[in-house]
Amino acid sequence: MSSCIFCGIVAGTSPGRIVYADDDVLGFLDIRPVTRGHTLLVPRVHSSGLDDLDPAIGAALFRAGQRLAAAMKTGPVSADGVNLALNDGRAAFQTVFHTHLHVVPRHDGDKLSFAKGFLVRRDPDPDETAAQVRACIESAG
Amino acid sequence: MSSCIFCGIVAGTSPGRIVYADDDVLGFLDIRPVTRGHTLLVPRVHSSGLDDLDPAIGAALFRAGQRLAAAMKTGPVSADGVNLALNDGRAAFQTVFHTHLHVVPRHDGDKLSFAKGFLVRRDPDPDETAAQVRACIESAG
Ligand SMILES: [Zn+2]
Ligand SMILES: [Zn+2]
Repeated sequence: MSSCIFCGIVAGTSPGRIVYADDDVLGFLDIRPVTRGHTLLVPRVHSSGLDDLDPAIGAALFRAGQRLAAAMKTGPVSADGVNLALNDGRAAFQTVFHTHLHVVPRHDGDKLSFAKGFLVRRDPDPDETAAQVRACIESAG
Repeated sequence: MSSCIFCGIVAGTSPGRIVYADDDVLGFLDIRPVTRGHTLLVPRVHSSGLDDLDPAIGAALFRAGQRLAAAMKTGPVSADGVNLALNDGRAAFQTVFHTHLHVVPRHDGDKLSFAKGFLVRRDPDPDETAAQVRACIESAG
């Protein structure tokens, strides 16, 4: 854990621009913001991703995201919208392996395009796909 | 509410390929998937977005996302990673105004690039930005 940069920010031993804090969650600016004010919310207790995240802490993380999104729509940020995103695993672009929720304030007409590069297409066999997802849930219990 | 397509799917009056269900949340395939198995999780009770989403239901929505992500890493889907995303407001690419959490299974080497088009750059004045976000939280209470 001692090499986890986000644990360091939580402990106060690594620098971070803290913008949010509650009992379970800390929020600080992303050092590579996709929009101004882009914040990362992290559980204070280390977990690497969704697999080892205590569901109660996950719920607290989402609640913090909802709270921060509401706040960002007010005051000096006055966002018109907000993206919440959690990237779980290297295949999903996770780069720091301490669970974090991105909170990205958006403004009408900003240039950010999350959609670009998406493989938007029709699934050739959605019934089979649905069956597969259901099978995963059944096997996972 | 009668014109809300997602309320229609929850009520069973509109078609949808249901893959997940619990007391508070229903999951069905996105008809424009960004990867195969791309699922939308929606609260059974209508809310348009984060502003009018009961925080307890928000927590249940995230919990369902965590559960579905774990399931998708098993069985026929066998995802290597998962993206969770909630787009709140038109400025954030929300197109259906019934709160929904995207659950996007990912595989190593897939072509999906969420990052493209991002305004990745250094904030010229992150201290001022952090102060602004904190001011929003203070004013929002
Ligand atoms: Zn950590
Ligand atoms: Zn609805």
